[in-house]
Amino acid sequence: MFNFIQAGSITSVPGFFAGAVYAGIKNEENLDLAILCSETLCNVAAVFTTNQIKAAPVILSKKHLSSKTAQAIVVNSGCANACLAEQGLADATEMAKLTAVKLAINIEDVLVASTGLIGAPLPMNKIKLGISKINVNESGGHQLARAMMTTDMKPKEVAVEIDTGDFKYTIGGVTKGSGMIHPHMATMLCFISTDAVVDIDFLQIALNKAIESSFNLIDVDGDTSTNDCVFLLASGLAKNKCIDSATGKEFQDALSEVCIKLAKLMVRDAEGVTKFIEVTVEGASKLSDARQAARAICSSSLVKTAAYGNDPNWGRILVALGMTKIELTEAKLDIHINDMCVFKRGHPMTFNNEKLRTLMANSEDLQIKVGLNLGIATATAWGSDLSEEYVRINSAYST
Amino acid sequence: MFNFIQAGSITSVPGFFAGAVYAGIKNEENLDLAILCSETLCNVAAVFTTNQIKAAPVILSKKHLSSKTAQAIVVNSGCANACLAEQGLADATEMAKLTAVKLAINIEDVLVASTGLIGAPLPMNKIKLGISKINVNESGGHQLARAMMTTDMKPKEVAVEIDTGDFKYTIGGVTKGSGMIHPHMATMLCFISTDAVVDIDFLQIALNKAIESSFNLIDVDGDTSTNDCVFLLASGLAKNKCIDSATGKEFQDALSEVCIKLAKLMVRDAEGVTKFIEVTVEGASKLSDARQAARAICSSSLVKTAAYGNDPNWGRILVALGMTKIELTEAKLDIHINDMCVFKRGHPMTFNNEKLRTLMANSEDLQIKVGLNLGIATATAWGSDLSEEYVRINSAYST
Repeated sequence: MFNFIQAGSITSVPGFFAGAVYAGIKNEENLDLAILCSETLCNVAAVFTTNQIKAAPVILSKKHLSSKTAQAIVVNSGCANACLAEQGLADATEMAKLTAVKLAINIEDVLVASTGLIGAPLPMNKIKLGISKINVNESGGHQLARAMMTTDMKPKEVAVEIDTGDFKYTIGGVTKGSGMIHPHMATMLCFISTDAVVDIDFLQIALNKAIESSFNLIDVDGDTSTNDCVFLLASGLAKNKCIDSATGKEFQDALSEVCIKLAKLMVRDAEGVTKFIEVTVEGASKLSDARQAARAICSSSLVKTAAYGNDPNWGRILVALGMTKIELTEAKLDIHINDMCVFKRGHPMTFNNEKLRTLMANSEDLQIKVGLNLGIATATAWGSDLSEEYVRINSAYST
Repeated sequence: MFNFIQAGSITSVPGFFAGAVYAGIKNEENLDLAILCSETLCNVAAVFTTNQIKAAPVILSKKHLSSKTAQAIVVNSGCANACLAEQGLADATEMAKLTAVKLAINIEDVLVASTGLIGAPLPMNKIKLGISKINVNESGGHQLARAMMTTDMKPKEVAVEIDTGDFKYTIGGVTKGSGMIHPHMATMLCFISTDAVVDIDFLQIALNKAIESSFNLIDVDGDTSTNDCVFLLASGLAKNKCIDSATGKEFQDALSEVCIKLAKLMVRDAEGVTKFIEVTVEGASKLSDARQAARAICSSSLVKTAAYGNDPNWGRILVALGMTKIELTEAKLDIHINDMCVFKRGHPMTFNNEKLRTLMANSEDLQIKVGLNLGIATATAWGSDLSEEYVRINSAYST
């Protein structure tokens, strides 16, 4: 049994504290530097970008996680601290050190995350002053969520309470990301906290599994960032009997729901988004096929522009599907758009085009359902549409 | 030695004839149905889409090419004849039959190609009447080029004359395509003719090789169409000593040049294009790495939008590069934009941002050069930018 906490945040979890300031990294006066910390040292699971070019904070945090434990995260927006060679690594290390000194913990227990423009160095004087001004407290989660935002329009947070009957614990999560989103193994910055006692090996397994059905099934624009990372911190303050792979189903379900909710919030807040596209692929002969197909359709520029134009141009769905290497038979395919059947067993259906256009125009969500009719595997993926506003935002990003 | 023929077309090759009409398949009154034919039966090399969903004309033409010979191509725009099950195949067969009867040749010697909206059936009465009205002649190549266009703004044609010293022959080519362009093994419709005598096996090898360095290195929007095909017809009328792999270098070079020229014309006429992006990757440890990297950069939505906005946001070039699986070392990377060095041996360079913006704004072409500094392999790829106009065109395509 789990329930979403109203207006929940990463500090809805007992024992986690956060705070943020405007340090002056961003041009506009919005929060841009934050710290999250735990009362105690946490077991940590983490997933990082698969991009071969890794930002300095990714390299440093990986190193600090060789112990699989951490107690704090320091994060900034406005600057990615990526592609800066040894200067980038020195600055990330300094950020960790300043945070460790402030919190009186070991530097190896501090994780660092940065997001923003690639190639510009961090303004370390501002970071130093900013860190000294941050006050962490138990309601600071909302501030942290805002301090991570770049082109995001809205903070993206969620928290759930789990009651197993025997014991209770909480999971809270926060993410940012609105462009350069096509996660592979991870997405833009996402932090998740829990007070549950969780076996360290199972913690990583559960995170990997949750990511496969959430962040790895969304797309905004086909690009995977250099700074992507997901950190899951488990403090153990709930003092429950240790959750492991034998007893972890409920934890897994709740964690997956948290990740799916955050992933969908990212797509709903994608750069220039006007339409939330949900693609379900059913009847695949295996799960990996269903996932690959659903994500390929969500990622197609032509499906995205048709969605933007409320154009039921189902041929583009087939084009995107056919570009994959999954098992498929054209003569068995069905396609539904917003519950209207447009293609059945390999044949175009006669449908009321005007009615479907109106249906599409009147809904913020576009539902695409593809039936492969080969097996029983099903997957759902989510994507944003491609609007003129996306182009406007991204043609002037570094100005 | 080869020379480009001024205002050359596919019928610049002696013995090839073409003609086109407005049959009424398109809404606007533009040429939409054409025939290309040869005086004699030709050896044919062909490459088809790798999309798993194949249009009816692709399936039929593949069947007709089991003999590796053909004498004519019938092509229409305005309707892709794709995803229509048995009706699509019946209509494609009827198109071949009508053309065969008109030209008094075997139906198996007719290839069929269609391009346009997926899922709408061909108006066969209009096609029948249209085919009866087509007059093929030796200057009909330009008409054929126009009849293949959909969202293309310009016809795309080229012809070269080759003089080996011992003998002369000609190669002519025509292509269409402006969206749904991310060819893999082939691109949108492209027909190439030659009067050279070419060994049938070498003809296919030469075509594959030419495509690897041309159509397979361009991108407009990451989508591979259901209707892609390239046909290369060699009539042998030049009566030269048969060209084969031992003697074929000159033919290969000329054919590759024809394909590169046509591929670049496609990118220059891409939907909504305002900037032609040329990416050269040097110093790769192998050719496939250089090609993969160059194309990945051309295909990135974020590189495309930055190009549109004249934004020297080189971090996005690194993001796209890092998403590939090629061998790379960040500390060895160099990047030049329009000959200005912005990143050297893994370090950002100080450069005059305003000057580079002005340079970019004042040029129709954007030159990106990436040095991997690992080996000696080099490749160049070409892509269009991503503009608001692309979104406008593609959000209302099937209306």
